[in-house]
Amino acid sequence: MNMSLQQSLFEQLDAIVLIDSHSHINPHAPTSSTLADLLGYHYYTELAHSSGMPKNAIEEPGISPREKVARLFQHLGKIDNTIQWSWFVELSQVLFGFQGDEINLSNWETVYDLAESKMQQADWETQVLATSKVEKVFLTNDFDDPLHNFDTGKYVPCLRTDDLVFHLANPKVRERLRASTGHAVATLADLKESLNALFVRFKNRGAKACAISLPPWFCPKSYPDHSAAAQNALDDLNQQGLQATEGSKRTMAEWVFWKIAECAESFKLPFDLMIGVNRQVYPGGVFQGQDLYDSRVSLIQYSELFNAFPNLPFPISVLASVTNQELVDYAWIFPNVLTHGHWWYSNTPNYIRHDLRGRIEAIPRNKQLGYYSDAYKLEFIFPKFRMYKRILAGILAADFCLGQGWSEDKALSLGKQILRGNVEQVFG
Amino acid sequence: MNMSLQQSLFEQLDAIVLIDSHSHINPHAPTSSTLADLLGYHYYTELAHSSGMPKNAIEEPGISPREKVARLFQHLGKIDNTIQWSWFVELSQVLFGFQGDEINLSNWETVYDLAESKMQQADWETQVLATSKVEKVFLTNDFDDPLHNFDTGKYVPCLRTDDLVFHLANPKVRERLRASTGHAVATLADLKESLNALFVRFKNRGAKACAISLPPWFCPKSYPDHSAAAQNALDDLNQQGLQATEGSKRTMAEWVFWKIAECAESFKLPFDLMIGVNRQVYPGGVFQGQDLYDSRVSLIQYSELFNAFPNLPFPISVLASVTNQELVDYAWIFPNVLTHGHWWYSNTPNYIRHDLRGRIEAIPRNKQLGYYSDAYKLEFIFPKFRMYKRILAGILAADFCLGQGWSEDKALSLGKQILRGNVEQVFG
Amino acid sequence: MNMSLQQSLFEQLDAIVLIDSHSHINPHAPTSSTLADLLGYHYYTELAHSSGMPKNAIEEPGISPREKVARLFQHLGKIDNTIQWSWFVELSQVLFGFQGDEINLSNWETVYDLAESKMQQADWETQVLATSKVEKVFLTNDFDDPLHNFDTGKYVPCLRTDDLVFHLANPKVRERLRASTGHAVATLADLKESLNALFVRFKNRGAKACAISLPPWFCPKSYPDHSAAAQNALDDLNQQGLQATEGSKRTMAEWVFWKIAECAESFKLPFDLMIGVNRQVYPGGVFQGQDLYDSRVSLIQYSELFNAFPNLPFPISVLASVTNQELVDYAWIFPNVLTHGHWWYSNTPNYIRHDLRGRIEAIPRNKQLGYYSDAYKLEFIFPKFRMYKRILAGILAADFCLGQGWSEDKALSLGKQILRGNVEQVFG
Repeated sequence: MNMSLQQSLFEQLDAIVLIDSHSHINPHAPTSSTLADLLGYHYYTELAHSSGMPKNAIEEPGISPREKVARLFQHLGKIDNTIQWSWFVELSQVLFGFQGDEINLSNWETVYDLAESKMQQADWETQVLATSKVEKVFLTNDFDDPLHNFDTGKYVPCLRTDDLVFHLANPKVRERLRASTGHAVATLADLKESLNALFVRFKNRGAKACAISLPPWFCPKSYPDHSAAAQNALDDLNQQGLQATEGSKRTMAEWVFWKIAECAESFKLPFDLMIGVNRQVYPGGVFQGQDLYDSRVSLIQYSELFNAFPNLPFPISVLASVTNQELVDYAWIFPNVLTHGHWWYSNTPNYIRHDLRGRIEAIPRNKQLGYYSDAYKLEFIFPKFRMYKRILAGILAADFCLGQGWSEDKALSLGKQILRGNVEQVFG
Repeated sequence: MNMSLQQSLFEQLDAIVLIDSHSHINPHAPTSSTLADLLGYHYYTELAHSSGMPKNAIEEPGISPREKVARLFQHLGKIDNTIQWSWFVELSQVLFGFQGDEINLSNWETVYDLAESKMQQADWETQVLATSKVEKVFLTNDFDDPLHNFDTGKYVPCLRTDDLVFHLANPKVRERLRASTGHAVATLADLKESLNALFVRFKNRGAKACAISLPPWFCPKSYPDHSAAAQNALDDLNQQGLQATEGSKRTMAEWVFWKIAECAESFKLPFDLMIGVNRQVYPGGVFQGQDLYDSRVSLIQYSELFNAFPNLPFPISVLASVTNQELVDYAWIFPNVLTHGHWWYSNTPNYIRHDLRGRIEAIPRNKQLGYYSDAYKLEFIFPKFRMYKRILAGILAADFCLGQGWSEDKALSLGKQILRGNVEQVFG
Repeated sequence: MNMSLQQSLFEQLDAIVLIDSHSHINPHAPTSSTLADLLGYHYYTELAHSSGMPKNAIEEPGISPREKVARLFQHLGKIDNTIQWSWFVELSQVLFGFQGDEINLSNWETVYDLAESKMQQADWETQVLATSKVEKVFLTNDFDDPLHNFDTGKYVPCLRTDDLVFHLANPKVRERLRASTGHAVATLADLKESLNALFVRFKNRGAKACAISLPPWFCPKSYPDHSAAAQNALDDLNQQGLQATEGSKRTMAEWVFWKIAECAESFKLPFDLMIGVNRQVYPGGVFQGQDLYDSRVSLIQYSELFNAFPNLPFPISVLASVTNQELVDYAWIFPNVLTHGHWWYSNTPNYIRHDLRGRIEAIPRNKQLGYYSDAYKLEFIFPKFRMYKRILAGILAADFCLGQGWSEDKALSLGKQILRGNVEQVFG
């Protein structure tokens, strides 16, 4: 009965039309052209590499999509135990109509051809969105993205701010900022104007959030108006570029981050914080397969921020499951802290289950933003959300219906709010 | 069968008469007068605030109890998913005889009236204790609590020492100490005398423990007799009060803490350590809803202490579940380290379950103090212990009876020892 | 059906002949002579001590084996809830033919006599290996172990390097190094020669790995050739011995560790890292029952190492479960990082289950070295592996067969690879 209750809850959750509150979809090329686009996703290339496939076999320039996939399948059998692999098999079954249970060296070309014929259909994007029951997808836009020529009602702009905060020492970033706003970045006042101009443009184009990923060491800090320390740091960046001191870089990271939070509050854009990643820990890794982390991070580093912006919602993702209880408890206490999805290395069932159970039983129900896909191609939204919905259905069945005597309808209503309702409420 | 075995174990555990080894009950007003006393518990006010209710709507001076509850119910629907809310519903059903499954905007006044009529009965306290099957309740007494006019056999005094350790710079605390002991606090010798006098008084009034909550950064440290550094620090506190240096405050915290441990050992009072809380992380929060933590704490900070007091039992609570495995392992190795309850932010089923499973399978059975309520009003002892007993019964059924072939009686005997037997043994 | 599927998987996993990739077996005395050898295992002495047994009652010189066991049984009832105790009961049932469910004060002498009669049989070692289905056992050999007079096909040498890295300041260690290699250790060049000589000897005697346990603070670091800083540190050690500065000791630890990694790579010996232990946290504890840890450690401390030795496999064990997700994710990204067993304080079902689920769903299947016994006596290999196999079978049944529709055969094949196949593959 437990199993059938769980199944029943899953099916009802699975019928809900979704808004995906964080992705890396390119609105100009939202779907894949061949299997190489799907299996080129870093989850597969990095696992294939980790299992023994040389990086250059994967990233050799000029190889055809089919050749790339052929090479990958020499190794993908070594990752067929992973949940990441199950995403690919499930999407192949449901989106391409693949009939088998396994995709391996013996049959990958069948899947390749099947996928290609589907992907070439003119309405493939519409098919994928319809089958996946996805209504809107939030994007991750560079600050200088022109945001032109796509339907911002379906593909919702979101201002990604990592470059501004952590790479302003890079002359290219400053030039991109100047070019996209028309403002120089000689003074703090200039910089403030530039940031404001970005927010005006994003807001005008329907942006619903700004976002940033943050390293474990980062600790937001406010500076007084006209701070000499911050102006000196900006001077150092302008004069020395990448050779500016670490101190100057950190000061500007802190200053810019805080200004972005001020803009986010003024422009009423929730500020997605994705906390805990160290970039390029393995520089010899494949594209996008180089980042890891130090799990020794605490949300107490953000207490000054949370206190300073009581009216700005912070949907927060943490990279490591050991940080999740802090997230639960900061969301339990701070009105402006919300839980947001299950990010990256914590996006596997073992950690989702433990982290979701921690959240669902202790945080107000209107503050839990259940899941986002983080996908680069639309096809992945479907299997990733399904993984989450299975776990959510299991917890609703076991902990609420069986454990506390809730009716199925009452449990479903909680599930719907976490899966969809709060996304609408928070991002408006 | 698993379910009925678990149910059977639960019912037998639920029949045990309890000693609650840690609470904040006021022995002069142990029960509630209206629902406002129950829903004024910080678990509800902080969650209501977190879900969107302004602090001043909750804490406006002069509002009537009924008005306060009416206002809270505008928001409590947003926390009806939480385990904290389930405590309130369960106690209303069992203690007040409320017949429904939900308490919400549509029916809260019925419950209010029902509760009020119960609470006005002369023997309400006795009814609550009897229904909850509670025999003794440990208190949390300020060091200058006169400990008069209550039954210390039922309400067991426990010396709370946070003020002495962390707030001695405050002139009011020093004055309270002087007033309650008759000793000045000019010298370390005075201070030692004062502490001794407190222990004499508490011991004479039947105290069974002393207790303290500790921030993550605290690291107990011994000082030599007649330490000049400690005397200088005390001088600084006496002369500068709250303006004394952080160094002086820390030195005195270390010195006083160590002296209290010495007294606890001499007076044979177990020293409850509640490790890991940062106070006032959210100063804008509601009363008692401002504290959080930094989970980067290690019990290795306490190794000098554990080694120095081999004959002093340390019942230990940790705030974050990520510290629980260290607690398991320190209790596995150190004879004087005991596990004590599931504290505050770790007192929800997801964390209790993981933490209890870690403990019950690896620590000697005589060193596990299963649970305490931490309650401010007697009514909460019942649902909180029930939550714990359900989880304990589930683990005994699954991991011991089914997993290892234990008989139900053998499992029950383990459960009884953890739930009650060890409390008697350790606190005497 | 879930239960019978799990049972069926367990039985098939239990039929696999094992290679135990890490133990402390003495190949000259691999089995026990009396129950005192088994109950003298630190898991029992430290738990008995923790439960209240004085250290000197356990370690009094000159007591007979039977007297030691008699004394222990005065306290072992207090640890009969532990998984560690279940190992002893299960091995007594299967290896000695003990018929009961409990071993306690009332019947321990029966078990003592039964065990003694078995242990005196000439082929006891063969019986234990056959019943336990163990083919090879990796040892932990001191660097100056002559490695003579045992079957290195069955008892595989493994070079343990803790002394070289962390105790080179000790004149006895330097003398042992000189005596076992014939090289002085006056210069870095000498030291390099000595280390090389050790590897030559171990490799010639069939060693399959080198290994080290590491404290939480350790952070591997490379030095340039002919580093003056390292030579100065070595001079300090040679001149001051244990009185050398902490800086010199740390520098030499870093230098020697890195040289060992270079040798391991040249000699193609996987380098087992066992990360996170602090030695002698409780110096008053029983033999081998004094070590604990600080769980605030990160694998990012090892990123320079992992990047520098891309061709050297690092089978990694972590002491605390909170570090396991980092291990999962470093193994997911770095080709040379492998997961290795469930070590010591994380070798209990609650932590094995959570940690194994994290691994099995996210790391390439060829990179998971499931389990090792860490045993000091052959008799313990059997119950420890069984504990692991039960958990593995449960996860395969629930998460793969039921959760993802895998066939039993497919799940079994994954289990076999993790339990045995990868050990062969990685250690050759």
